[in-house]
Order: sequence, then structure tokens, then C-alpha cells
Amino acid sequence: MIRQAFVHCISTASPDDLSGLRALIAAGDLDPAGIVAILGKTEGNGNVNDFTRGFATTVLKTELGRHLPQSDVDKVSIVMSGGTEGGLAPHLTVFEVRDVEAAPEPKALAIGRARTPDMPFEHLGRLQQVDLVAASVQRAMADGGITDPRDVHFVQIKCPLLTLERVSSAEARGESCATRDTLKSMSLSRAASSLGIAVALNEINRAELDNDAIGRDWSRFSSRASASAGIELADHEIIVLGEAPGWSGPLRSGHCVMNDAIDIEPVRALLATLAKDGDARLVALLAKADPGTTGKLRGFRHTMLDDSDISSTRHARGFVAGALAGVVGHARIYVSGGAEHQGPDGGGPVAVIMSSERPQGGLAA
Amino acid sequence: MIRQAFVHCISTASPDDLSGLRALIAAGDLDPAGIVAILGKTEGNGNVNDFTRGFATTVLKTELGRHLPQSDVDKVSIVMSGGTEGGLAPHLTVFEVRDVEAAPEPKALAIGRARTPDMPFEHLGRLQQVDLVAASVQRAMADGGITDPRDVHFVQIKCPLLTLERVSSAEARGESCATRDTLKSMSLSRAASSLGIAVALNEINRAELDNDAIGRDWSRFSSRASASAGIELADHEIIVLGEAPGWSGPLRSGHCVMNDAIDIEPVRALLATLAKDGDARLVALLAKADPGTTGKLRGFRHTMLDDSDISSTRHARGFVAGALAGVVGHARIYVSGGAEHQGPDGGGPVAVIMSSERPQGGLAA
Amino acid sequence: MIRQAFVHCISTASPDDLSGLRALIAAGDLDPAGIVAILGKTEGNGNVNDFTRGFATTVLKTELGRHLPQSDVDKVSIVMSGGTEGGLAPHLTVFEVRDVEAAPEPKALAIGRARTPDMPFEHLGRLQQVDLVAASVQRAMADGGITDPRDVHFVQIKCPLLTLERVSSAEARGESCATRDTLKSMSLSRAASSLGIAVALNEINRAELDNDAIGRDWSRFSSRASASAGIELADHEIIVLGEAPGWSGPLRSGHCVMNDAIDIEPVRALLATLAKDGDARLVALLAKADPGTTGKLRGFRHTMLDDSDISSTRHARGFVAGALAGVVGHARIYVSGGAEHQGPDGGGPVAVIMSSERPQGGLAA
Amino acid sequence: MIRQAFVHCISTASPDDLSGLRALIAAGDLDPAGIVAILGKTEGNGNVNDFTRGFATTVLKTELGRHLPQSDVDKVSIVMSGGTEGGLAPHLTVFEVRDVEAAPEPKALAIGRARTPDMPFEHLGRLQQVDLVAASVQRAMADGGITDPRDVHFVQIKCPLLTLERVSSAEARGESCATRDTLKSMSLSRAASSLGIAVALNEINRAELDNDAIGRDWSRFSSRASASAGIELADHEIIVLGEAPGWSGPLRSGHCVMNDAIDIEPVRALLATLAKDGDARLVALLAKADPGTTGKLRGFRHTMLDDSDISSTRHARGFVAGALAGVVGHARIYVSGGAEHQGPDGGGPVAVIMSSERPQGGLAA
Repeated sequence: MIRQAFVHCISTASPDDLSGLRALIAAGDLDPAGIVAILGKTEGNGNVNDFTRGFATTVLKTELGRHLPQSDVDKVSIVMSGGTEGGLAPHLTVFEVRDVEAAPEPKALAIGRARTPDMPFEHLGRLQQVDLVAASVQRAMADGGITDPRDVHFVQIKCPLLTLERVSSAEARGESCATRDTLKSMSLSRAASSLGIAVALNEINRAELDNDAIGRDWSRFSSRASASAGIELADHEIIVLGEAPGWSGPLRSGHCVMNDAIDIEPVRALLATLAKDGDARLVALLAKADPGTTGKLRGFRHTMLDDSDISSTRHARGFVAGALAGVVGHARIYVSGGAEHQGPDGGGPVAVIMSSERPQGGLAA
Repeated sequence: MIRQAFVHCISTASPDDLSGLRALIAAGDLDPAGIVAILGKTEGNGNVNDFTRGFATTVLKTELGRHLPQSDVDKVSIVMSGGTEGGLAPHLTVFEVRDVEAAPEPKALAIGRARTPDMPFEHLGRLQQVDLVAASVQRAMADGGITDPRDVHFVQIKCPLLTLERVSSAEARGESCATRDTLKSMSLSRAASSLGIAVALNEINRAELDNDAIGRDWSRFSSRASASAGIELADHEIIVLGEAPGWSGPLRSGHCVMNDAIDIEPVRALLATLAKDGDARLVALLAKADPGTTGKLRGFRHTMLDDSDISSTRHARGFVAGALAGVVGHARIYVSGGAEHQGPDGGGPVAVIMSSERPQGGLAA
Repeated sequence: MIRQAFVHCISTASPDDLSGLRALIAAGDLDPAGIVAILGKTEGNGNVNDFTRGFATTVLKTELGRHLPQSDVDKVSIVMSGGTEGGLAPHLTVFEVRDVEAAPEPKALAIGRARTPDMPFEHLGRLQQVDLVAASVQRAMADGGITDPRDVHFVQIKCPLLTLERVSSAEARGESCATRDTLKSMSLSRAASSLGIAVALNEINRAELDNDAIGRDWSRFSSRASASAGIELADHEIIVLGEAPGWSGPLRSGHCVMNDAIDIEPVRALLATLAKDGDARLVALLAKADPGTTGKLRGFRHTMLDDSDISSTRHARGFVAGALAGVVGHARIYVSGGAEHQGPDGGGPVAVIMSSERPQGGLAA
Repeated sequence: MIRQAFVHCISTASPDDLSGLRALIAAGDLDPAGIVAILGKTEGNGNVNDFTRGFATTVLKTELGRHLPQSDVDKVSIVMSGGTEGGLAPHLTVFEVRDVEAAPEPKALAIGRARTPDMPFEHLGRLQQVDLVAASVQRAMADGGITDPRDVHFVQIKCPLLTLERVSSAEARGESCATRDTLKSMSLSRAASSLGIAVALNEINRAELDNDAIGRDWSRFSSRASASAGIELADHEIIVLGEAPGWSGPLRSGHCVMNDAIDIEPVRALLATLAKDGDARLVALLAKADPGTTGKLRGFRHTMLDDSDISSTRHARGFVAGALAGVVGHARIYVSGGAEHQGPDGGGPVAVIMSSERPQGGLAA
């Protein structure tokens, strides 16, 4: 018995649409007990008052509770990314791991996960969070049997944020937090978490890092980090996707970096490399989009940062989605905003999962 | 002495930024007396309450008035398209025609123009508007010396829209307008205008057309129409771009059709065809973007039509701009929304102008 | 044993905040078995892609399911109205009926309810919907023991809307819907439902009504209708508030009509009439807001209908909420948008519930 | 010959609508030479990408240039406030001063103005700006003949902002500015200017003020300040409205403070006090609106600060406009956002101008 990773991409008709997920489970194509993570794109604005993320998460947890004990439901990492601008298709991507009777591949898609201990909130946005995350990313790699950081292609992390209560509790202990602004704390937590991933993957030198660089020095970044901040946890949920020996199945993965919003050639090259034969099929594309801080793209001014009607993150998601959809031929892809230290300023990491098999249920619209 | 067409692409820092235009004039690279049309992308929302179009138009007319008699200023077709979603760069594209001492090319870029008389607002969105436009497009072709409709690669038309005041004025005369919805009127006006262009270019059969088809029967469309509705006019401004004998210069043009928002392969093929040698350089790309009516893209649901926070035209511009910018390498391109009968449902026409010469002032950011 | 109506106004911290409701139940101030209806204001945009209504409804149904059999949960009419523009406070208003040992009042607050069967979507916005609703409103009055239509002060109806999927399903059956525009369908459904209420309350003559009047002839309206369209149902939920003999308790109700968005004097007069003694206390205010169709207010132009960034219903709710909050001293009131045939063009009905008793749990913030 | 103040309220059909202004001038009701200030409400969003302000200012300056030498045009203070949310009517309020043959009133509307010297940009947002403004406000009072600060009812100030160039120029002199964030600098400049007004009007004690209070300590404010930041000036334009002996005419003025967004009773009381006889007529109402920093209104939560679709300033303007329009009976009033130190946190100053005469041209819609 060896492990095989399954990735199910499921279109949704609304944030609470469970029909596709239920159909896969009913058909035996998806075993709830094997679900390690669910990533989703929902219809909201992806900003402060986006309740579609919580709506989707609520109904997903309820549904999983019909199949699993609560303790197992709590182990599943559910990350909903709001904002389906442009042609982006609302959907869920379910990551499942099963033990199968099969021959191991030299390098197949591998999934590992880990959680950090609860973090003292005064560590948020500081080097302590960077180190906490870096250590756990390495544990997640080990959990997936990935030994070489170069074989890691995507790291999804869900990190905590600050609330006034959390700030007060730290201050009651005589500690001060990095910020008292709860919205700012989301950005800082994503920033420190992403740098932690970069440290674990040898992308930056921890020794050269100081607190001032966190959320400021955009020259330091991870090419494989995807961070999301949530109020519902005090620790960190980490999912590592990569390639490792000892796993089975037709799925392969890879990653590249877009240096700006329309830098699609690295994506084309990556797809060509992974497309080993005519059957090669895209199962999932995971990317980060960001308007950048310069207000320019290839030397020309854009207006994303100055628009008070539409937030810059919404502009960036729809625009980058167009560039990527032109390459892969559809827009049922995961494009998420808020890319602090996740790829270079104005750009972002891209991970793809390909299959050498014919379509499975996961591709059905 | 024969005619040569010049195309100057000028970045702008705001809707009233004339610095780039003034610099070209001061340097002698642009002769105001030769300006036949100015197309622009401005920062507004591209919908009813977009005043950036009128603002840019006002300052441009004032500036031209410093160089030309008012009667000549009024002859210049100024078409501002609001909406620079995603990475789109606000800019002006100035079309100039000069008499030069040169050998005629077998086929060089040719420009023609015409205006319709003022239209009674009860004609908007109806066959009367179709016929009014069709006749004027043929006059514009003749103005440019273009005899074969197949040599027309782009027809830009600026058409009026309805305001509550305009509807009331028609009703006060005992007439009823096609709609009382101001936003809807922009769509109907673009629809009837585009069908008028299709009639003039022999793309559809006028005899088979009735009022019900306008804004409804998307199987009828022009592959070269680009319509923009504005609050600031009561007639129609028409510019025809194509190729004709008897013109001089290094500029060439061509067109293709995107069948949906991410159908970029025809654009790649067109660019390759026009790039006759290593020096070939993109001077301008002019495209239409539209969310389509099906709510789907390549079989997957999108949310552009159901978003009550951001209009579908804004979603579509930013998304299509991403797809096209990925191809041409920057986003200082003209992507205009509302593509009713301009290309197929959900798609749109694309026109490009290439030069075989090294960069001129027009390319400076 | 006779019936007594209780009205609990509960502030919420998010669409899924159940803490206030749970506290009242835990304290014994609210008996889940007696809940007949829950009206709420949630944080969304109140338009097509407002999922906060469904989110709140989902968690409320789950919570009620902890106390009641599913068959009873399904009987509770849950009407969430999206859009808390301006200072509007997100909150729930819970209507409870209990059997009590008490002397009947000559006229106390009475509540009745009914549901229609599922409606074929091609009936939406047409006379079939009007008749369907009218019949059910009379059943709801009977349920509340209200015999005289003049004693009805508020009729809340939740009606369905069209989605692209629903339109397609009707067309697949060879039927055509009143519109393919999803946002328009919300308006048409509210319009037909409100005319159905007006018919039931003898406010208009059914014989004089035709399909063309629906959503067009604003001279026909109900002074007590409040209609809300939601994506989450295919039938209609109807709640009637009024006064009837044989009910007990300190609650009284009344209604008036605002002739435009700032017509607050009728509200002042109504409050004064109901305030029989110094103890009189506002328990709930229920109102409709609408931008009207003229584009003018008291002779001056407004821009609500021409704003393509913010929908006119959002403008109207925030503006009317300001006018009403200035009168009652706070903004935890129910102001719902889309007032087609609910009060005159640009105005709307207002219902209030007052108590002669000192504050109960329902007033806690 | 003594001075008389005239106030003309002119409805506009668009940001560049000059028809009303021109009609008054043509009719001789308004002498361009006497215009000291023009306040306007325009259709934009009132935020960063609101170009309706610049559009209106551009056409107004051009129009004034037709009647006055440029040096006099430059003396007119033009303040356009973007954002006509809810029912707010786009309009211009023109303040004119004429020498007339008439008997002086004991107290008539008086207008004074002053400009500060150019301010070193490192003073922006600091006590030096407070002092600079305070001194000039006193000069403006003297210019209007107002001796008692209690007779000042409204002070409009237009103050500079920082650009990267301005920050650099200061740094080149070895100085550091209060911020390098240009958007933040607008808020800081309004804050320091408003505190300067408060100092001049004896509303706060200059001795107790330090730099940290500027833009932070909201307990210190002016009840008569209205500040607007603009890129087009390096000094400050100050207009003081009040009452003084030695002026003629039927206009009177007064002011009050709303302690929150719906605190309308002080406004009612002010109007009653000024309405000396049945003929009393409102000529203009000038108010500031602000969402406040607490996220609550009268103890209930609102969502203005958490809405990523509509900016909090837009919510606040529409909501406060509703409360005020309910009191005065129409919404052609000046409600401006961004009220740093202009009234208490969440509230704002209100100034009214009343006339004892029958309507003049200024009231025409």
C-alpha cells in the first residue's frame, strides 16, 4: 500500500453549492476520509466584507461532518479565496490522499501537511512567526516525503490575524503587538508566513532577515508561497504540494514565477515541460495576483492603485486571470490576491498540476 | 503629393493631460492640421456617469483650438472610451494624415471619416439608426479612398446615448424611445450602429434585418466594428481604417476576430502575418471586449453578468485586456467595452497597426 | 389561553451571528417553538450577487433545527433583506406568537402567515404571480384572525428571482420568461407580488389590471406591501402584521406612506398617534426605499439612476435610512429596497410597532 | 456705498454645465466681478479618482476668464466637493459681494477672504500650518469686518497637499515632511488647517496643542471649519462667512454642530431661530459628513467602515444628506466628506444661510 494524491476540481453554482462535491462522494470518486485540504474561489469581493468565504466554509464543514468525526473535520485545511473577477469560474479544488495498491512512481504528486503550535500574538508579523512557519514547513515536507526543497511547488498557509481582544491579551502580559490595526495584521501575518516559507525552501537567507523587512522589502519573496489570513485559528495550517518518490498516480506538478501581471512566457514553458505526451491535461492552476506598488506595468501607467470604486486586488485578479486563461484555455483557475512576499512586487508564483490520464470526474463543469 | 497616415500613441497622466500631445506638436512630429481622429482610453467607469470622456474631449478641443480654426476642430473625430480596468494604460491614439512627397505604396494604411446628421433620439436602437450609420460608413470609406469593403480593418463609431432628459424631450414630441433605461440605451445605440457598419461592409443583409434583431440576434455582427456610446454628442462620429492604394508610409493594418474573451490565437496569427521582418513593430491594437450573454466561458460559469458591484463591461475590459496584454507584451492598448454585434457573442474584433520602421515619438511612454 | 405576539429586535455582528438569538432563547425570553417569522438586515448589496441573505438564512435554519423538528423549521418565514447602507444596523427582528393566560385586548398586534406553492418561473412578473400572491395574502390574514383589510399594517413577502439557469429551464420547456435580465427579474417579481398584496387589501381593482401595468404603472400601489426578492426560494413567503381582536399584549401597530424619500412628516404623525403615554416605545420600524423613476426629488435632480458604480437601490436605502433615523433616533431599522408598487413612485410604506411596556430583551443592542 | 453679500444656488446638469451660471450673469442677477468663491457638489466619488472636480473647476475658470482678467480669476476660491450620494443634487453655490446704495443692517451676512503665504511643505500637518492658518483666518475676518469670533458661522479653507516632488524638495533642503504618503498628506493638511481655524475662533487652546494631536485627537475640533485639500496651490485659500455690522441685504447666517450623523435637533433649532418671519427661506446649507471611527451609531453597529465596495465617505454623505434633507425639505445642499477636526468624531458642523426675501434666481432648479 502506497499513497496516491488525487486533485478534484469542482465547479460551483454558488458559495454554498455542494452538489458537485456530493456527486463525487456518491460516485465513490472521492473518499471524504482522505481529504486533506480544500481550496476554493468564491463570488465575493475578496476584501473585508466578503462573507462568501465564511458561507462556503460553513457549509463545507457541515457537509464533512456528515462523513467524518469532528476531530477529523478540524484537520482539513479549508481555504476560500474571495473574488472571481473577469471570467474566473467559482470552484472548489479538493486535495485527497488515498492508500492504494500500485507501483510507486519515481516522482508523483506528493502532499504533506503540518500545523504550528498556537502562536503568541506578539510574534505575529515578526521574525518569531517567520521561524515558527519555517520549521513547520519542513515538517510538512517530511510528512509528504519530500526531501529536496526544489521539489516543492506550492505551499498554502493559513495564518492567524490580530483582533482587539488578542492585542489586549498580549498587552496584559506586558507584550506589544506589531500593530493594533486588525486589517494591517492580516497583511503582516501573510508577509511573515510567506517569508517563513521562503526560509524553509532556501529562497532567502534567514541570517540577513530582520523585522523591518517584513511587509516592506519586496525584493525578498518565495516563488511557491500562497498565504491566507483567517480569524478562526491561532496557529498555522500548512499544505505542501510537490513531487516525491514513493507516491503513485498520474499527477505531476511544477511551478514558475510571473515577474509581473502579464509575464506568461514562464507559464507556457512550464506547461510545455510538464506536457510529456498528447494526453497531458491541466488539472489545476494556482496563482497569486497583485497590483504591485509602482503604479506601472512595462513602463506604462495603470490605474489599479488609484481606483476608489474597485479595489486594486479585484483589478489585479481579473487582469491576471485573463493573461493566464489565454494560456491555459479556460478560467476555472485559482487566482488569489494579497501576495506579500509571494513572488516579486507586481508578480506572483504559479503552480500547476497536470495529469497524463484522460479526464476524471474532477473536470466536469 | 500623396497622403500618408501617421499614428501617434501617447500616454496620459490624467484625462486632461495634454503634455504628451503638446510635446509631439512642439517637436514637429505631429501637425495639428493633419489630425483626423483621436481615440483615447480614460480612467472612468465607461458607463453612464463617466465624465472622464467629456473632460478629455473638452480639453482636447480647447488645445486643438489653439492651433486650428473652430470649424476644423469640429471636424476632428474625438472618441474617448472610458474604463482602464486591470493594467490598461490611459492613453491617446492620434490619427494624422499628411500630404507627402513620396512614392505610393500598393497598400498602405488609409484613413477615412464621416459624421451623420443629428439623430432624433426615438431612432436610437432602431433600423433608422442602422441605415443612418450604414450610409455614413460608405461615405467614410470614400473619404479614405477605400473601394473594397474587404480592405476595411476597423470602423470606430461614436454614438449617442439616452438620458432621462432626452427621453422626456422625445416623449414631449409624442415619440417613444426604444428604452427609458439610460445604461440600456448605451447598449442599444452601440448595437444599431454596429449593424449599420456590418451592412456597409456587406457582412449582413440589410433586407433580413428588423428592429427585433437589434441588441438580440447576436449571430449577426461585424468583424470590424467598434462602437462607443457617449453622453456628449447627438450624432455619430465615424472613422474607417483600412488599406488603399495611393497612400504612402510604413504603416500596415489588419484585423481578426476573437470568438470569446480568451481566444488569442487569431491575434497571434495576425501579428505573425503582419510582421514581415524583424523591424515590424506594433503601433496600436484596437479591440472590443464583452462578457457575452451565456454566463459561461469555455463551459465554465463566470460571474460577470451577476455582479451588482462591478458592471459586466468593466469585468470584461480588464479580463480581455489581460489576455491581449499577455500576447503583445504591454497594456497600452485600446480595449473598449460593449461589443453588441461587434464580433460574436462574448468575443470581439481586433485590429492592429504595425510599422516596419524603428520607433517614432508615438511609442514613448 | 389566547395568542400574544412578541417582537424581538436583535443586533448581529455578521450574517451568521446567532449569539443574540441564542442568548434570548437561553434566558427564556424567546421560545423557538413560537417563532413564525424572522426579518433581517444583512451586510450585502441587496442585489443579485448578495449571498449574505442566504448565509444568514442557512445558519438560522440550522439553529432552529436544534430546537424544532424540520417540518416546523420549514414553516418559519425567514426574510433577509440585504443592504445596510449608511448607518443601517445589521439586525434580526423575530416575530413570536405564544399562547398566554391573559385578557384579550380589543385590538393588539396580530400576525398571520402563508406560503404559495412553487411558481413556474415563466409566471414571474405576470398576472399569474399577482393572483397567486393575492390568494395567499388572504389566507395569511385568516391565519392571523384579521378580517378587515384596513386592520392590516404590513405585509412582508419574499418572492423568487430569475437566474440564467431558471430562465433556461423555462425555455427548455418551451416557455418564455418576462425577462432574461436577472437584476430586472428581482424588480418584476417584487412588482407583481406587491400588486397581489394591493389586490388582497382592496387597494386596487384586479379587473383593471393587465400585464403591462406590472412594473410600469406606478399609480397603482399598496400602502402596506414590502417585497423582497431572493435567490434561495421558488415560492413566496408571506407575513401579515395587523391588529385583531382576541390577541393579548402591549404591542400596537400602524402604518403610513412616505410620498418621497424625505417625506418624514407622516412618520412623525404616526408615531405621535401611537404614543399613547410616556412609556410608549418603538419596537420596530419597517420601511421601503426607492429612488423613483423621475430622477428628481422635490424638483431637484439626483444622480441615483445614473450611477453605474453604486446601484440606485443602495443609494436609496442609505438616504431614506438617514431621513428615518433622524426621526426615530437610531438606525437599527428595517429599510428594504426595490419598492415597485410599494407606496408611490419614489416613496414607500412605513409600518411601526410600538409597546406601552418598558424595554424587554428585544431592545438590547 | 456699502457691501452686500449675495449667495446664488445653481443646479447643474453635469460637472461642466455652465448654463445656470451664464443665465444669471446674462440676466444681470450676478456680476462676475463680484464673485469671491464658488462651492460645488459634483457627481464623482469624492475620492482619489474623482475627475468631476477638476472638470468642473476647469470649465468654471474658462468661463470666468471670459469676464475677468486672469489675475482676478485666480483670486476666486473654487472648491468642488465630489459625491452626490443618495438624493444630493449636483449644484454650484456662488458667493458674490457687491457695493450697493443701501442702509446698513445691524447684522447681515458678511464674507471675508484671505490667502496665506506659500507654506514650506515640511510645515504641512504640523503646528506651523496650524499657526499659519490661524493668523490668516483672523485676517479674513478683518477683511469681512467681523470682529467677534462668535459671529463666524463657516470657514472654508482650501489647503495644499504633498507630492513626491514637494517632499523631495523639502528633503533636498535637509527638512523632513510629516508623511511621504500623498493621500495621507491630504488628510493631514485638512486636519492642521481645521485646527488652525479652531484656534482662530477660540474653540481650542493653542497652548495645549502639540503635533501628535493633529489627525489623532478628535476631541479637539472646530464647529465652523470646512477643509478641502488640492494639488493646485502651495498656500491656503480662506473664505469666512459670518455676520457683521456695516453690511446690507436680507441674508442672515448661523451654525450648529451635529454630534453624530443623525443629530438633527440642533439643525431644527437653528432654522427656527433664524426664521424670524413667514418669509424666511433657506438659501444654502453647508455641512460636513463623516462615518466616524467607532463603527457605531447610537450604540448600534454600522458597516460603513468595513465596506470594500463603497467607501465610507460615500456612505456617510448619502446618509447624512437624508437626515438633513428630511429637515429642510430638499437635498440641494452641500454635504462634504473628510471632516478631520471639523466637528466631533462621526458628526460635523452645519452652517445655514437664510433670506427674509422672496425667492431670487438663485433658487431656481
